[in-house]
Amino acid sequence: MSKFFSDRYASLAPYVPGEQPKEKKYIKLNTNESPFPPSKRAQKYAAAELKKLMLYPDPDCKGLTKAIANRYGVEEGQVIVNNGSDETLYFAFLAYCDKKRPAVFMDITYGFYKVFAEFTGCKYVEVPLNSDFSVPVDKLKKTKGTIFLANPNAPTGLALSKSTIEEIVAADRDRVVVVDEAYVDFGGESCVSLTEKYDNLLVTQTFSKSRSLAGARLGFGIADKGIIADLQRIKYSTNPYNVNRTTAAAGLCAMEDEKYFSSNCEKIQSTRTWTKTQLEDLGFTVTDSKANFLFAKSEKIGGEELYVALKENGVLVRHFTAEKIKDYNRITIGSQKEMQILVDKIKTILEAKQCELLKS
Amino acid sequence: MSKFFSDRYASLAPYVPGEQPKEKKYIKLNTNESPFPPSKRAQKYAAAELKKLMLYPDPDCKGLTKAIANRYGVEEGQVIVNNGSDETLYFAFLAYCDKKRPAVFMDITYGFYKVFAEFTGCKYVEVPLNSDFSVPVDKLKKTKGTIFLANPNAPTGLALSKSTIEEIVAADRDRVVVVDEAYVDFGGESCVSLTEKYDNLLVTQTFSKSRSLAGARLGFGIADKGIIADLQRIKYSTNPYNVNRTTAAAGLCAMEDEKYFSSNCEKIQSTRTWTKTQLEDLGFTVTDSKANFLFAKSEKIGGEELYVALKENGVLVRHFTAEKIKDYNRITIGSQKEMQILVDKIKTILEAKQCELLKS
Repeated sequence: MSKFFSDRYASLAPYVPGEQPKEKKYIKLNTNESPFPPSKRAQKYAAAELKKLMLYPDPDCKGLTKAIANRYGVEEGQVIVNNGSDETLYFAFLAYCDKKRPAVFMDITYGFYKVFAEFTGCKYVEVPLNSDFSVPVDKLKKTKGTIFLANPNAPTGLALSKSTIEEIVAADRDRVVVVDEAYVDFGGESCVSLTEKYDNLLVTQTFSKSRSLAGARLGFGIADKGIIADLQRIKYSTNPYNVNRTTAAAGLCAMEDEKYFSSNCEKIQSTRTWTKTQLEDLGFTVTDSKANFLFAKSEKIGGEELYVALKENGVLVRHFTAEKIKDYNRITIGSQKEMQILVDKIKTILEAKQCELLKS
Repeated sequence: MSKFFSDRYASLAPYVPGEQPKEKKYIKLNTNESPFPPSKRAQKYAAAELKKLMLYPDPDCKGLTKAIANRYGVEEGQVIVNNGSDETLYFAFLAYCDKKRPAVFMDITYGFYKVFAEFTGCKYVEVPLNSDFSVPVDKLKKTKGTIFLANPNAPTGLALSKSTIEEIVAADRDRVVVVDEAYVDFGGESCVSLTEKYDNLLVTQTFSKSRSLAGARLGFGIADKGIIADLQRIKYSTNPYNVNRTTAAAGLCAMEDEKYFSSNCEKIQSTRTWTKTQLEDLGFTVTDSKANFLFAKSEKIGGEELYVALKENGVLVRHFTAEKIKDYNRITIGSQKEMQILVDKIKTILEAKQCELLKS
């Protein structure tokens, strides 16, 4: 840090992305990426942009915006595209939180909400999840401020129904509710259609998970035109050209390639069901995840211990140190083959631990 | 705008990017893009990333950062890469300007500085350029605050020498000076080497102009490690994955392909010299631009009138309405062929105007 750095940010604890070690090849089940590459068509159209990279992209991303609007049955003015979901969420913190309007989010949820709150200097309230990781809906409804709700939630994978979210949005029409649907395509219920009825609802989605474009950086928000106009104003005041040419082209195809998209989502859900059963057979407690990851703990081995042992065995999963969830690991659903290896490795680790216990 | 939008931003005037009309094909000399595509190697390496787009990029962009550090003879810890120069500049406004430390910039310069100042809510001072568009160096040195200096300046194209910039940086070691070198590769003198000596200097550059990657969105900053650590902290608190995979790969090659880069820069400079002479022969006053554009006015035709007439004739240039420069147009240096067409069109426009005057 330099001596010039603004006091506002000096004590910040920035977000820590999932580890991306380069020293050896791992089976990466730690950052919720898709095991499937982008569609051939997405790759082809992105490739066609490469010789045009000397020209600025369209800051409005008209073609992509139209494809999203068509897919979700909304008007183009109800859509904003950004450099990943994170950017849309950051804009929403800037637009709708301040010293008077706190941000409200769960104590166990996407870790970036707290970073955004601290960075933008707004107040914030962390509402504790119930002991079964469910959302205390009545308590949430009564908490004043702008709500940020990941649905399905991370890292628990649990989802609220659309009708429950509608209840929350309808309970106070004078506050904005942001529903972060990064993982909704794997079995959750999207609230996009509620944006027609509620001008205080912003739904954010990403191309990073179900649409195989984590490396392209693309996310979008859908809301009433008023909210989208606010977010566009922030975009045009900070970085209008935030989405590059290849990403806009790949994104357009990824949005149109419905068949490839839904087939991938189905495969991931079926692999998730298989993996969950296997882990339960090994004695794990596994939440009812509607996301492309499982959240699991075992009485036989600590969360951190399993994370370390798997890493030594060439498999990366994500462990969080927060007290309430330290017994768990979040395991991305990879390919069927990768999950078979994961299950085999866990078996071996548990057996080795059993032997040690018997010896001592 | 929604009724929920934070008061802080309600009165903002966002940046207006150069027009990108789609209704017909123009010769685009209005946004300072390169007429040359990215190198074949840059295209090839970017294409190889497309099948890996389901995986997150490296948020540190290690390979690219190393290539930039090598090229400029600095350490990797002295480099940050971002989603375009605009993002680095925005971070610098966040880091080094506030209610106590105003931003200081010229009254005629890159229009985004004022937008950043208003968006971040810092105070700002606009120092008037001299009537010949030169920078009043002594006055600038005496003005308290964080300096943002485009060198060469836009839209005038005029450049300060490295020794003059050193004078400004050395005059007050307790304030940060940001030198925006977006256009430096076309004949300006870079101040990167001064970052070894001065911990209060941040130099920003972009891949959008001399490196033919405006459509990829890539910029970087070079400074003392302290300043880079500040900017990284902001990046990791807002959007750590701001540079996507294809852009990082294309950027690495564009930085290494020194021969292609310098050959393109030379061509643009030689076309600039040719175009300047042609315009002067037509009676234009043209500044001594060290950038990839010319800034020119004619006694025979108003700035806006020429802009409109050229647009009707299929050539886009950039006109600014500010009183001090309203007689001028900023004309990007395109290919030799494009500039020949520009000169021919201007001749025709001036002749037609002459005929009209004679008739009336």
